[in-house]
Amino acid sequence: MNHRHFMRLFLIILVTGFAVSSNAQELKEQLTREKEFDAQVNPSNLKEWMKLLSSHPHHVGSPWDKKNAEFISSQFASWGYKSRIEEFYVLFPTPKTRLLEMTSPQKFTARLTEPVLPEDATSNQIDEQLPTYNAYSADGDVTAELVYVNYGVPKDYEILAEYGIDVKGKIVIARYGGSWRGIKPKVAFEHGAVGCVIYSDPKEDGYYQGDAYPEGAFRSEEGAQRGSVADTPVYSGDPLTPFIAATKDARRLSIKDAPTIMKIPVLPISYADAIPLLKSLGGPVAPETWRGALPFTYHLGPGKSIVHLKLEFNWDIKPIYDVIAEIQGSVFPDEWVIRGNHHDAWVNGASDPVSGQVAMMEEARSIGELVKKGWKPKRTVVYCAWDGEEPGLLGSSEWVEAHADELTAKAVVYINSDANGRGFLSAGGSQSLRHFVNEISKEVLDPEKNVTVYERLRAKLLLGGSPDQKKAALEKQEFQISPLGSGSDFTPFLQHLGIASLDIGFGGEDNGGSYHSIYDSFDHYLRFSDSDFSYGKALAEIGGHAMIHVSDADYIPFRFTDFSDAVKRYMNEIAATTDEMREQSSARNRMIDDHIYFQASDPKKFLYTPAKDDLVPYLDFSMLQNAVARVQSSASAYASALDGFKESGRTLSKEKTTTLNHMLINSERVLTVKSGLPRRPWYTHAIYAPGFYTGYGVKTLPGIREAVEERNWKEAEQQIAVVSSALDAFSANVTAAAKILKGE
Amino acid sequence: MNHRHFMRLFLIILVTGFAVSSNAQELKEQLTREKEFDAQVNPSNLKEWMKLLSSHPHHVGSPWDKKNAEFISSQFASWGYKSRIEEFYVLFPTPKTRLLEMTSPQKFTARLTEPVLPEDATSNQIDEQLPTYNAYSADGDVTAELVYVNYGVPKDYEILAEYGIDVKGKIVIARYGGSWRGIKPKVAFEHGAVGCVIYSDPKEDGYYQGDAYPEGAFRSEEGAQRGSVADTPVYSGDPLTPFIAATKDARRLSIKDAPTIMKIPVLPISYADAIPLLKSLGGPVAPETWRGALPFTYHLGPGKSIVHLKLEFNWDIKPIYDVIAEIQGSVFPDEWVIRGNHHDAWVNGASDPVSGQVAMMEEARSIGELVKKGWKPKRTVVYCAWDGEEPGLLGSSEWVEAHADELTAKAVVYINSDANGRGFLSAGGSQSLRHFVNEISKEVLDPEKNVTVYERLRAKLLLGGSPDQKKAALEKQEFQISPLGSGSDFTPFLQHLGIASLDIGFGGEDNGGSYHSIYDSFDHYLRFSDSDFSYGKALAEIGGHAMIHVSDADYIPFRFTDFSDAVKRYMNEIAATTDEMREQSSARNRMIDDHIYFQASDPKKFLYTPAKDDLVPYLDFSMLQNAVARVQSSASAYASALDGFKESGRTLSKEKTTTLNHMLINSERVLTVKSGLPRRPWYTHAIYAPGFYTGYGVKTLPGIREAVEERNWKEAEQQIAVVSSALDAFSANVTAAAKILKGE
Repeated sequence: MNHRHFMRLFLIILVTGFAVSSNAQELKEQLTREKEFDAQVNPSNLKEWMKLLSSHPHHVGSPWDKKNAEFISSQFASWGYKSRIEEFYVLFPTPKTRLLEMTSPQKFTARLTEPVLPEDATSNQIDEQLPTYNAYSADGDVTAELVYVNYGVPKDYEILAEYGIDVKGKIVIARYGGSWRGIKPKVAFEHGAVGCVIYSDPKEDGYYQGDAYPEGAFRSEEGAQRGSVADTPVYSGDPLTPFIAATKDARRLSIKDAPTIMKIPVLPISYADAIPLLKSLGGPVAPETWRGALPFTYHLGPGKSIVHLKLEFNWDIKPIYDVIAEIQGSVFPDEWVIRGNHHDAWVNGASDPVSGQVAMMEEARSIGELVKKGWKPKRTVVYCAWDGEEPGLLGSSEWVEAHADELTAKAVVYINSDANGRGFLSAGGSQSLRHFVNEISKEVLDPEKNVTVYERLRAKLLLGGSPDQKKAALEKQEFQISPLGSGSDFTPFLQHLGIASLDIGFGGEDNGGSYHSIYDSFDHYLRFSDSDFSYGKALAEIGGHAMIHVSDADYIPFRFTDFSDAVKRYMNEIAATTDEMREQSSARNRMIDDHIYFQASDPKKFLYTPAKDDLVPYLDFSMLQNAVARVQSSASAYASALDGFKESGRTLSKEKTTTLNHMLINSERVLTVKSGLPRRPWYTHAIYAPGFYTGYGVKTLPGIREAVEERNWKEAEQQIAVVSSALDAFSANVTAAAKILKGE
Repeated sequence: MNHRHFMRLFLIILVTGFAVSSNAQELKEQLTREKEFDAQVNPSNLKEWMKLLSSHPHHVGSPWDKKNAEFISSQFASWGYKSRIEEFYVLFPTPKTRLLEMTSPQKFTARLTEPVLPEDATSNQIDEQLPTYNAYSADGDVTAELVYVNYGVPKDYEILAEYGIDVKGKIVIARYGGSWRGIKPKVAFEHGAVGCVIYSDPKEDGYYQGDAYPEGAFRSEEGAQRGSVADTPVYSGDPLTPFIAATKDARRLSIKDAPTIMKIPVLPISYADAIPLLKSLGGPVAPETWRGALPFTYHLGPGKSIVHLKLEFNWDIKPIYDVIAEIQGSVFPDEWVIRGNHHDAWVNGASDPVSGQVAMMEEARSIGELVKKGWKPKRTVVYCAWDGEEPGLLGSSEWVEAHADELTAKAVVYINSDANGRGFLSAGGSQSLRHFVNEISKEVLDPEKNVTVYERLRAKLLLGGSPDQKKAALEKQEFQISPLGSGSDFTPFLQHLGIASLDIGFGGEDNGGSYHSIYDSFDHYLRFSDSDFSYGKALAEIGGHAMIHVSDADYIPFRFTDFSDAVKRYMNEIAATTDEMREQSSARNRMIDDHIYFQASDPKKFLYTPAKDDLVPYLDFSMLQNAVARVQSSASAYASALDGFKESGRTLSKEKTTTLNHMLINSERVLTVKSGLPRRPWYTHAIYAPGFYTGYGVKTLPGIREAVEERNWKEAEQQIAVVSSALDAFSANVTAAAKILKGE
């Protein structure tokens, strides 16, 4: 862990003292409070606020972005919160020139516009809309042959190599999907491409999935997906101010030195604009899994299509407005329970982020009502409406960097939400919070089926889950919560500072294709998503109950045995991956030696025999295995101690309670590594990180796992030591917490 | 087995006597002979004959069909064969009226024509071409709502039921694929549909797979697939003369009583004709696995599209011309080694069947040359060029029925081929022939890679096979040959009479979409398939070596341990299926009781909870297990006896040799069951049958397997007894053969 953080916590622990009330009494009060809370939540507020907040485009730097922040802040104030707006100044490029044309075999110029639809009232706000573009693309003016690279992830380039296709000096066209979008230009650049076009294939979110807008919810012919391509797996937040807050006078990197800005021009397009490009590609027919839903044969290129891509941006510094609203804790004011959802959008953003934002607002309003009626949360409750999430988690990251020391000392947990929809609870987060989330999900009713959210999710897992999920659901085990990668504002909290985090939301029954387009509108949301805001209410209840629980609990509700189970599983996965890689590499090498690739291949398809792999050594996992064993035993010891303590009816002094809770809070902090992950020191969490080559997708035990995946065996062994040491700190901390409960 | 057959064999066994030559000498001579054979095979003959045979449409009843038969027969005669044409008179309907139109929501009339292409020289022979239609469709004139049924197999109707969709009184539209085409109208009729349209989705063999014709090899917009929909899983051959030859004066069923003629009108169409119909369908969005490659959302219907289908046929009796060419055996003239390939096509049929036909012709010519040079095959060699395969294996089935007694007595083995292409050996057949096929495949060189056909197939299995196939190939086990279902002329031989059969061909590198269209032409074949006829040569060599081996071998080369392994595997598969069904049914029933389907379902998608299953009883497999154990021990005993015999250097008298060989031949006959399969007595083989609901796809141990799949538990147990008794006859026969070798 970070030594500075530990000392600070230690000091806080020393200065407080108080005897906590009994658990039974506490529980009863809490149930009453939750009932009062639920009675407050009113879906019509959500609808009214969504209509207002999404009535105009409200991206970073737009007038409506600021207006929304001011509205939200004033609302919080009216509900009894101490509310303020914190401003930061971030690099936010917007397009000056966007040109994509094909010069050969025929001339074609991409339209790059999403049409106004009479069925969509806000689609005509053309002057206020950001055009379709990828933020943090490089400026560029390139003309080159085009190559289709499927999703554009590293594996795809291995397959291209088997066809003898190199993208060096070429422009690549990738389809959306298969990874976070920013991975596509990054990997293209690594392979020598000079430009990248990303298009929305109807297979992913268009007519292949369902009727296109405005008939249905899915992406139409000319719909395109805006989005950031900043390299957030290196750090999130303003590209010019890593590690520090983007205050007015902050010391900034120059744009050319900012490592998270893409090095080649990147442009997102609709499939209407992609069709002429793809259709004219020569070269081999794309392998089956690469084919989308457009009505022609997908070829890989290159050879026939020559494309000209010219992009220029206004590289402006823009203000962003985070709304921060607090209710002071009555007993532990220096323990903060933090809740957040962003408010900025790419365009009107009714779903992303307003659907989540309005649920959080109604949750906050209802909590405000409880406080007005006399409830005094023991801990400080902090609601945050972030700006600048879309370009790269700017608002949350800068705020976290600005308040790093205070947050390290005080943050108990961070609970995030984002776009919300109709369907099933989706919950990710720190594994110590798994039991907590399960408990909350048993308290909230699913609005469609009149069973609990927990029961409905279990039904889904029973019918449609993976074999492991089915088995677990049959055995009535608690559901798993996914470890967190990135893609929303939990990242700086969890992965930069080591604050236990949750990400919650509903969805799965409202799939569509309005994401990051002008059609993510109030009209679209009302027709195709959570039309009556009943899942907005459910989210407010899940979030509200979580906030009430944590802010009022005697002991922070972590269950470390869930964490130890998860870590053991992650370790075993990596060990199994290593074994599989070893077997595959040796089988593959043997087949190359035996000319099997040559013999099996079709001479008319020009497939190249792959290169031989280096052999996969046996790694020494023993240090990690021992560390995990100690985590398991300390987690069990804590669980027994807690049970024993509850049964005994004993109480702890306020001083001991505070000491205990800070140890609990600290259990996530100690999982961070001061030096951070290899080549990305901003990411300090040893257990969870966004994948360097997946973007949003999580890598657990990332230092080890990515070293293995990259075949960097030396680094894998180094990282085994690093992670083991973080886990040992965890075990020591949890063992100490157990001792307090046992009165030792 | 059929008692009559047995007595006949027994008599033949008694009347012969001769001492066979030693194995070593035999082997040497055979290798020399094969070399001489290979030197004969000349690809340019194949090309010349293909050009001629495919120069005009040559379907049943066409002038060119007869001309081709006469040409083939005269060629055989010129190569030294005693060649004749055998005629039969079969029901062969051709279209009089074909009308498919949509009357609502808009008016559309299907074109139902494949356009002439300048790139395809024979595509303009419009007057000679059969239009696109399905032979043995019913006459009909129906107007009804349209429902999309995916592939139209039974499982698809279960899924429709979950959406609450019933096809009763409706017209269904199914895509080609997923089963043999005749299953689609049959299952539609069983579910109450009044008409059936089958279209070629570009996902299956159009632009999704590769560039469309004439640019590439795949089916184009207006290409359609002709084909028979006679219910051949009930019997193959002329629908009016099951069990008997369709001679001029044969007693015929009336058309309305013929069980294999479809009961509803059926029409195949192109996707250009299907698009307006599918696009206008209302109702739920089709599940993901049902979606093809057309550029719109696939809906299930019904509700919007009303379709009018009117079909009338000329129900004519037409002559068919089987070419039968023989070379008399020098030692065992009453043991026939039979080789066949059909000559009729749907249109020009360069690939199907001419590519196989010309390879067989060159094989026969080369064997004729060996004979001219002095080789005297011990057994009688019979080459057959079948007519009427396309409408329902008419030529082969009628010939088999005409000569049933003689074939039962004399046929050693039947070796079939059909369309041939570029790539890998594909071999199916009686499992006792597995080792034999493996041996032959090691004698022939793959023309592209200069390794043996065996090695190339192994390379393919190593890289692209199933896990079982990969494992087997790694361990250098012999490759499996697939058990045979139907779809070509082996069916009457193997499954009606119990003659050990093989089906051989090359392919896998020449995929395309010309099947059963006017574009299956010489031009198409030359551009996209085995352009230099080197795989035609390879097929001639595989077929020729097989013919030389079997016609000259001392002992018919069956390896019964391969058969016993296979039967054991089939039995275990069925037992495992039963266990899985039991578990699935009980899990599903429990979930229905627990309202899990209700809880998990999307209320906006109207998915119905499935009905509860009956429980799956534990079946008594012990009789079958014991019978299989006896098969295993008799097969092993035969293998040891043969090894011992070879090592001993002993010889058998001609009488004993004949007795032994007839026991060997008989090993396949005894696997037939006199009463046939339940509800389809024409199919007598207890081990292999085309699936009642798959058509071409095989069902092994069909009596038991299909009873289990249909949840007819009583019949499953009855069939266990039936199959066990056939297996016991096999064991007794093979044990007796072993005794002869051991001199007992």
